[in-house]
Formats: sequence, structure tokens, C-alpha cells
Amino acid sequence: MVPAVSADCSSTSFTPLVVLELASDTKQEAIAWLLSRIRDPQQNGGAELLVEQLGLGDGGSEKENPNLFLVGAKWQRLLSGAEEVGLFKEFSDGSMRGFTCANKHNFKHFEGDGDSFLSMAECQYIIKHELDTLRAKDETHVPGHPQAKLYPGKSIIRRLQSKGILIQVFPLHEKEELKRLSYSWYQKVKLSFQPLDDIRHYYGEGQALYFGFLEYFTFALVPMALIGVPYYLFDWENYDKYVVFAVFNLVWCTVILELWKRFSTSLAYSWGTLSRKKAFEEPRPGFHGVLGFNPVTGREEPLDSNTKRQLRVYLVSLPFVLLCLYLSLYVMMIYFLMEGWALSVHDEEPTFWTGVLLFIPSIIYAVVIEIMNLVYRYAAEFLTEWENHRLESSYQNQLVLKVLVFNFFNCFASLFYIAFAMQDMALLRQSLATLLITSQILNQFMEAFLPYWLQRRRNKKRMRKVQKRKAVAEAELPLAEQVRLEADMSTYLGTFDDYLELFLLFGYVSLFSCVYPLAAVLVVLNNITEVYSDAFKMCCVFKRPFSEPAANIGVWQLAFEAMSVIAVVTNCSLIGMSPQVKAYFPESETQLILWTVAIEHGLLAFKFILSFIIPDVPKHIQIKLSRLEFESLEALKKKKMLEASELTKGIQ
Amino acid sequence: MVPAVSADCSSTSFTPLVVLELASDTKQEAIAWLLSRIRDPQQNGGAELLVEQLGLGDGGSEKENPNLFLVGAKWQRLLSGAEEVGLFKEFSDGSMRGFTCANKHNFKHFEGDGDSFLSMAECQYIIKHELDTLRAKDETHVPGHPQAKLYPGKSIIRRLQSKGILIQVFPLHEKEELKRLSYSWYQKVKLSFQPLDDIRHYYGEGQALYFGFLEYFTFALVPMALIGVPYYLFDWENYDKYVVFAVFNLVWCTVILELWKRFSTSLAYSWGTLSRKKAFEEPRPGFHGVLGFNPVTGREEPLDSNTKRQLRVYLVSLPFVLLCLYLSLYVMMIYFLMEGWALSVHDEEPTFWTGVLLFIPSIIYAVVIEIMNLVYRYAAEFLTEWENHRLESSYQNQLVLKVLVFNFFNCFASLFYIAFAMQDMALLRQSLATLLITSQILNQFMEAFLPYWLQRRRNKKRMRKVQKRKAVAEAELPLAEQVRLEADMSTYLGTFDDYLELFLLFGYVSLFSCVYPLAAVLVVLNNITEVYSDAFKMCCVFKRPFSEPAANIGVWQLAFEAMSVIAVVTNCSLIGMSPQVKAYFPESETQLILWTVAIEHGLLAFKFILSFIIPDVPKHIQIKLSRLEFESLEALKKKKMLEASELTKGIQ
Repeated sequence: MVPAVSADCSSTSFTPLVVLELASDTKQEAIAWLLSRIRDPQQNGGAELLVEQLGLGDGGSEKENPNLFLVGAKWQRLLSGAEEVGLFKEFSDGSMRGFTCANKHNFKHFEGDGDSFLSMAECQYIIKHELDTLRAKDETHVPGHPQAKLYPGKSIIRRLQSKGILIQVFPLHEKEELKRLSYSWYQKVKLSFQPLDDIRHYYGEGQALYFGFLEYFTFALVPMALIGVPYYLFDWENYDKYVVFAVFNLVWCTVILELWKRFSTSLAYSWGTLSRKKAFEEPRPGFHGVLGFNPVTGREEPLDSNTKRQLRVYLVSLPFVLLCLYLSLYVMMIYFLMEGWALSVHDEEPTFWTGVLLFIPSIIYAVVIEIMNLVYRYAAEFLTEWENHRLESSYQNQLVLKVLVFNFFNCFASLFYIAFAMQDMALLRQSLATLLITSQILNQFMEAFLPYWLQRRRNKKRMRKVQKRKAVAEAELPLAEQVRLEADMSTYLGTFDDYLELFLLFGYVSLFSCVYPLAAVLVVLNNITEVYSDAFKMCCVFKRPFSEPAANIGVWQLAFEAMSVIAVVTNCSLIGMSPQVKAYFPESETQLILWTVAIEHGLLAFKFILSFIIPDVPKHIQIKLSRLEFESLEALKKKKMLEASELTKGIQ
Repeated sequence: MVPAVSADCSSTSFTPLVVLELASDTKQEAIAWLLSRIRDPQQNGGAELLVEQLGLGDGGSEKENPNLFLVGAKWQRLLSGAEEVGLFKEFSDGSMRGFTCANKHNFKHFEGDGDSFLSMAECQYIIKHELDTLRAKDETHVPGHPQAKLYPGKSIIRRLQSKGILIQVFPLHEKEELKRLSYSWYQKVKLSFQPLDDIRHYYGEGQALYFGFLEYFTFALVPMALIGVPYYLFDWENYDKYVVFAVFNLVWCTVILELWKRFSTSLAYSWGTLSRKKAFEEPRPGFHGVLGFNPVTGREEPLDSNTKRQLRVYLVSLPFVLLCLYLSLYVMMIYFLMEGWALSVHDEEPTFWTGVLLFIPSIIYAVVIEIMNLVYRYAAEFLTEWENHRLESSYQNQLVLKVLVFNFFNCFASLFYIAFAMQDMALLRQSLATLLITSQILNQFMEAFLPYWLQRRRNKKRMRKVQKRKAVAEAELPLAEQVRLEADMSTYLGTFDDYLELFLLFGYVSLFSCVYPLAAVLVVLNNITEVYSDAFKMCCVFKRPFSEPAANIGVWQLAFEAMSVIAVVTNCSLIGMSPQVKAYFPESETQLILWTVAIEHGLLAFKFILSFIIPDVPKHIQIKLSRLEFESLEALKKKKMLEASELTKGIQ
């Protein structure tokens, strides 16, 4: 646990949980107003939290922003907050129930005042929720900042954020806890599963589900890898024998995705996020429109026409995405032309320089693709912002969709072209290997080690400043320095890129691994290092992210399922094209194609039936859920009967 | 409203709503026990309903069963029952809310004591629910019937039903209401929509949704019919021009099914069944197993292993169904052989008798198919019963699935064979027309007129008996006679067969109407008469069914969607086979097939995307639902705050 704020910066001491950083040019009256609103009791519309300004660090200079505030809360406030956000905790009978203060003593692990009942991540989540729902009363603007308009019911924090007055809100790390977690997670040499419960305890359910998925995915690939190795070693590589492999591929894809759903449901149940109700979603900070009354809440807030948004999506964004896909296709065709040309030059008169020339097209293509990905990502973010989605979730979904489609296209278009237009399996194999290995090395480097190195340099600078005056080790840094250190760390931007990477790897394996059986082996190796590098970057590179309650991996489940449908089509086509199968239909190509198509349709139908038959929720959790529902219905009935009988007595 | 029970058969008069018929050899002690349990107040575990024995009718003879009982209830009891079953009614602000006695006066149309607040169908549904949930206390068997074992918590009515002591439970018709309904529904000559709200008022949501779907489906077919007529009239029948028609077919199928979801959601919302929570489902009467404790309710009830049931389904039922399908295929092949033989005989030496011979195979095939359907239906019911499903709903789903697959196969296998194996479009066209027209005529006859005629004969007999003594018109029949008349009416077995018929009609249109554009016209005509005959049979032929709350058409939506997917595949193949399209690929059949398959995949993908994009719940209902949820969350929060502040005051 982080030590309480020392007496020199506050009269009352409390455990700081969350840091608010305001712009250094924020007016004093705005700060005073914000602090009083945060401290006000709930009856008066405040958040009833504790908040103190952070003193200037020992290494303090004029350049440092003085407007850092530490937010905490009393235990009672946090417990009532837990009830407000609808936290599910383990009940004494082992089931998961919505926490209520009224029967708090019936929850497992609730001891004494309950000051160790909530994890720090949960406390921080509660504080974030309370800050987010702190609403303007009759203020028309933030005092001292007339440009930051307010109206009754507007979330203050979101307005401050959208006007740049509030720079960031982030939760603090727990040094001790983090050390323990990182030891059991990636520093220990012993082979073991990841400590998912501890990860969830520290980072929340969203993160834990990502790491759970990463681990599950790795284990699910092991059978593929085990089958792939002999295929590779014993020279079964004449592309003749891959029919068995492709069929296995198909079944495997469907089954692992269905089983993952069950596994993730079990996890979400044990973490209490499965049956948790989502609160009403506020408009995202960037959302703008004409002021009006929300038809659901009756609150005043910006409204924007739904039709207009849909027109933007279908008339601008969709054509733009299609144009980009076309462009990407065009670039690909140029690449193949260039390669063909280089090959012909090399074949005509092979010298050292023509040998080098052979690599040029690939290098140019790789660089161009990276640039296109980058530019497209910016364009997608800009467009999605411009579409003006009301909810953060729909903004995220639209963005994921745009980026996903483009990345899928960029990664796989050339492979599809080689496989089906050129029908050159040797080249397909070579391209696949190159893509997998380079992207793996590049990713690990860009994702973890580069940010770590940058971070380390920054840290060292600050440490040197501090150590100039006092000779302390890093572990014993004073709180103020620790907070400033964390404020400087990079912000973790969510699991988007991590899932995207897994998605593309899943694509390589499920689409083409029958041609290059080592793909699964490479992906397993990649995933193992990925676990370590991701764990490392979560612990050492980034600010702690706010925990996000999640019951499943959301839109990614859909994306993986779509990929597995595409995999059925691709694998069937590859089977149909294999010389082995072609030998069965020596006289008629039409017959071959018709059979392939028929089998493909059968497999697709089987896939859909399978996903219907395998229940998404395991039986034992289904029983627990129904029992809870049944009990609440019975309790309601009993209460009604009691009221009725009391009424009757009253009349008598 | 039915007149109150006359004084000669009861001391207290009440409106009879539901009739219980016990076997004539039921022991007197069993009857006395049952009546007292029904009358007991709820605190003592009774149902707190009113119940009286029906006197012997004026035409009474020894042959008549004396054990008919009329059940009714006080208004207060019905209102509290409405709360128990979770009825949704219109609130004063126009939204639909769960009815509670506490704020009954805030509901629209609640006047005075509320004795006209609930419709008779709702009252009957409530009484059925109360009877169904009347549970044994510490009885070990039904008094006088030691074979009818009971244990604490067992539903009494279900045990009596499963042991044959209770012959039937049915709700009474309302003569006046029925007359009004039948006039506005099918007797009026004026062209208008069906009175769906009145149908729902009288028969409940399940019935009303069926008729709503029938009407919707008919209107949705009109564009197809309008396009089909010129195709037929202007001799576009050379199967060359059907590409446009097939493409239209595809888009149309997807769109109408998606729009139906929205329409049915609107209906279900306005009828209050959309957000209604399902109560915990009891085991069905036929379910048997070893006594044990239900893990959800903790009640003692028969338990049967889930694994055993699944083994029964996959190891016995599934192979059986596949075997039946194979048999049906075999019969079909024999039919085609016979027809080929008949044709060859006729061609060799055409006489009158060989002309007759041409029809023989078709007639034999039709008869065999009917017999197979009948036998299969019995077998499917037996098997599904033997699978021993715990819930009525899963029993129904399994039965629907079995019957659906077989019927689909029987109806369409020969058409598919003609279309794709024989590639004889003229024959396909002729078969389609024959099938459509004969099945239409046969159905109308078997479904409505035959039962009506039988019913009429029975009625006349009884009337004659009554009129022997008194000279009354049918409308003024005494209650006892009326009840006995209704008890003799056939029982309506649910919407299963009606939906099945629509499903097959939908198949004819969506799969093959591009070959025979008049199909849509025929189906529209059929549907119009179907509305009348179905309405007629509901009003005049059958006992009134208990109203069933339904929010959608359930498993049938899925079935229709599956059909529309099959329609995409079929239509694409038909397009690919058309001479028009073949002309585009004069040199290569492979190219043609590949293009067809590619376009088919594109259409399927488009279909799935479309079903994702079109939201299932219309925006305005989505808003109303979220508002309700938001308000209940806010109310909960407010209540918690109040409790907390009271607690604080109490401490001070």
C-alpha cells in the first residue's frame, strides 16, 4: 500500500489513490471550485472524496507543474461507492452477488470495517466513477474559464478534459504489490500459468481477460504446432499431404473459439463481471451537438441527429475505407509487377547487384505498407472522431472495425493473391515465413523494449536530480517524486493493438498453416515472448491504467469468429487446389469445383450448428445464475405477501 | 361477459373463468381435497380461488361426466395475481411497466376497483398460473388415489394431469366478445387489417403474433406477386429472364425477415411482453426421474441426468432422423424411376390407359409422402417424449426441429432433384404449381372445414337434446349446457402446424419462385383465405386456448432465417444454370462456376452484415426501454441514499 500523504502537504492524512493533473495555467478560482465540489457531501451534489494538492518534489523546479492533486476517500465512502457502481463480490455461499452495504457482513472476506475488502484497483475505479458523475449544478461555466461552458447535469470532469484544463487522471501504482505481481508473472523462471487472478486484482478485468486470451490462444495452438513439426521435419512439404492438416485446421478453429467463450464466461463469473449491469453511458468527452434534452435521462446534454451520423458513416467513411482498400490493392499489384521485373532482370544476367535487386521490391513494399498503415490509422481516428459518436463504446467499435478491415487486407491480400491468383505454393510459403518472422521481431522491439528504454532514460534524469540532494535508492523515493515519475510515464492506450496483433497471427495460422505447418510453431514462440514483453510493459513502462470491468473480449470475439469463417473458405479452396485432390477428378475440373463448394457449404453449416449446440455458459455457472434469479424472485414475492398481510391487518 | 353462476349450483355467485374436468371415476375425497386446496387462503399454501361444481345440464343423462368445476376469483385476488405473474400494463405516461398493486392507480385504464382493468384472457392466464403453482404440502399422494404420488413442492395440477385424473383445464369463451371479434375479423366484407389488438385481447399474445406474422408475410409477398404477374402474362417464361427476378428474391427475403423482427418487437412492446421476465420454468408433466433436489430452487423434484438426455438425442434420435431422411430420399428415387417408366410406356404406344398411367406415380408418391409425414410425426413425438426433456420449451424446440427438417426434406427434395440433378426447368415449374395448388386446397379443407363440420354435427345433437325439453335459441343456452358444449369442442394444439404451413410456403416462394413467378401470387391468395379459415377455426371450431405471453415467434424466426440462407444458395445456383448467364462464359464452365460461387459468398456475407446493421429494436422503443431502466436505477440510488441518511440520523 502506498504510504499515507505526509503531514507536510495535508492536515488530514489519507491513502492517495488517483492523481488529477490540471494544466499549469489553470486559474486559482477554478481549482478552489473543483476541490470544493469534490469534497462536498453527496447530499449537496458533491463527490464526498478526499483531495489534496501534491507538494513540489524535492527535485522541484519552476518548470514542474504544481497542479497535481491526490484523490482518496474514506472506507465507508468507498463501500457505498462499490454499491453504486454495482460491484459483484463473492457471497458467503460461494455465489457472486451485487455488493450492498446493508448486508456487507454476509460477503466473504469482509472483516471488521471492511478496509481490506476492496482491492486498490476497485477503489480507483470507484473514485473514477464518482469523479466522472460529478455534475454541474447551476454553474454556467467553470469559474475563471468562461470558455468551458457548463449546464445543469453536465459531467464536470469531462468538460474540463474536453477543454484541456484537466490534462490527465490516472491511478497510482502500488510499489510492493507490483513487485510481487511482476515476480510471479514474468520474473520467476518456473514454468506455470499466468497469475490471472492477481493480474485482475491489480489491473482489472479487461486486462486480465486479454492475458487470459493470450494464454488460452497459445495453449490452443500447441496441438497445431505439435502436428506441424513432423510435417516440416519429415519432408511432407511437397504440398501434397496438406489435406489432413487443413481439415484439422478447420475443426480446431471452430472448437477453440467456442470453448474460449465458455472459459471467458467462467472467468467473468468468478470476477463478478458476468451479471453486472452496465450503468447508463454518458456521452464521450469529444461529442458535440445542439443542447437539448436526452429522451432517456431527461438531462440537458448535446444532441446530434442519428441520421446525420449514419449518413457520415455510409456516405463518407465507407467510401473512404473502400478507396483505401483499392489503393492498397493497387500498391500490391505494383509490387508484384516490380518483383516480376526484378526476377526477369536477374534471370537474364545474374550478377551480385541483380541478386540485391531481388530484395528491393519486398523492402519497398514492406516500408510502403507500414507507412500506409500509419497514415490510415490517423485517418481512421480522424474520421471516427468526425462521425461524432455519442458513446465511447460505439466510437471504439467503429474504429476497431475500420482499422481491422484495413489491416486484414494489407496483411493478407498479397498472400491471397499468391495462393489463388498465382497458385504458387512455394512462394506462398516463403512469404508467410518472412512475414511472420519479421513482424514478430519488429513488434517485440517496438512494443516493449523501445518504450522501456525511453522510459529508463527519463527516469534516470529525474533520479539524478533527486539524488543530487538526497542519497536515496529508487525504492524509497518520496511520494511526491513517485507521483511525478508516474505522471511522466507513457499512457497505456488499451488492449487494441495487442488484440490486433493476436488477430493477425490467428489469421496466419488458420488461413495458411496447412501450406506452412511451422506457422503454428512460430506463433506459439511469439506468444510466449509476447506474454513476457506485454507483462513487462504493463509493469514497468506504462502508467497504471484504470481497471475496466469486462465480461468478455467484446468485438474481438466477433472478429476472430469472422476470421474462422474465412478460414473455412480458404482451407477448402486450398484443399480443392491440391494435386492430391485433383488426382481424384482427372477428367473434369467442374466436378472438382462443385464437390469442393458442396463440402465447403457443409462445413460452414456444421460450424454454425456447432456454435449453436455448444452452450456459451457452462452448466454449473448457468445453475448459479438461475439460482440467484430465482431467489430474488422468491424474495420479491415474499416481500409482497408480507406487505399485503400487513395491509390486511391494518384494515382489521 | 359470461353470466354469473346461477344460484342453483352455488351459494356465492361469481364469474366463471376456467373449467376443470376431472375423470368421472375420481374419488370423492380427492375432489373434496382438491377443492379445499384451491379455496384455501394463500398464507396456508392454497390458491385462494373460487370454485364450484357445475350442475348437470338440462339435457343431463347418466352418460355425462358430473365432475366439471368452474373456477373464478375475486378482483383483488386477480390483481395480486397479475403482479405475481409479472404482467406489463400501460402506465399513465404511455410506457409499459410491470403492474404492481401498490401504484395501481397510476396505470392507464385503471378505474374504480379495477374490475375491468384485466382482460378476461389475462384473468384466465392468471388463474392457470395460480393453479399450476398450487403445490403439495406434506401429502404423500392424492387422497383416494395412492398411485398419484406427491412430495412437498410438487405441482398438484401437473401430477393430476400426468396420472389422468385431471382430463382437461380450459378457459371459457365469452359469447358477446367472440361475436364482436369474429365480426370485425372475418365476417365483415370491408377490406382492412386484422384487429390484432382485439385478437391479442381475446386470445393472448402468442396467437396475435401468429396472425400478425401471417398478415405481414402476405403483405411482404405482394411486391413479388406484382412482379410475378407480368413475368407470367407476357410470356417471359422461357427461363432466360429470371436472373433479375432471382436477385430481387434474395434481397427481399433478407429485408422482410429483418423488418419483421422490428415489427414484432413493436407489437410485443405495446402488448407488454417484450421486457417481461420469464418465471422459473417448472418441469413438464411427463418428465420423470429419480427424486432429488433441484440445484436452482432447492425444491424436491425428479432429476434426470443431462448427459443421458444428450446421449439419447445424439445417439438415437439423430440417427433415426437421418435414417428417415434417407428413406424419404429412397422413396423419391423410386418415384422418379416409376415416372420415367410410365413416360417410356406412354411414349411407346400412347393409349388412354397409358395417359392415366402417367398420373399414377405422382398420386402414389403424394399418398406415400402423406403417410410418411403422419408416421414420422408420431415417431418424432414419441422420441421427443422419450428423450425426457425437463422443460416444455425444450421439448417443443426439439419436436419442432425434428418435424421441420423432415417436412422440409419431404417437400423440397424432389424439387431440388428436378432443379439440380435433372436440370429440367419445365418439369420443376409444373411440379411446383401442382404442389402449391393441391396443398392449398387440401389444407384449407382439412384444417378448418372438416373440423367445423364435425363440430356442427356434435353441436346439433346436443342442441336437439336440450331443445327437447326447452325451446331456446343457441345464444340463450344455459351456462351448464354452454360449458359442456365447449368441453366437447376440439382442443387447439398451438400454432405449430400453422407456422409449419407458412414455413413451407415461404420455401416455395423464396427457393423457386424465379422459375415459376406465379408462386408468389398463389401464396398471397392462399394466405388471404388462410387468414379467414384460421380466424374461423379459432372462433368456431376450437376450445378457447389459454393465452400465452410471447415476445416473438421464437424458434420460427430462426427457421425462416435458415430458409432464407438456403434461398441464397439455391437462387445463385439457378442463376448460374440459366442460359442467359451461361452465354457470358461460352468457353469455360469452370469460370462460370467460380464466379457464381464468389457472388454467392458475397451475397451471404452481405446478408449477415445486413442483419447486423439493421437494429432489431426500433429506435423509439429502444429509448423507452432505456428510460425505464435508467429510472429504476435512479430510483434505487435515491432509495439507498435515503436509507443511508436515515441511518446517519438514527445514529445521531
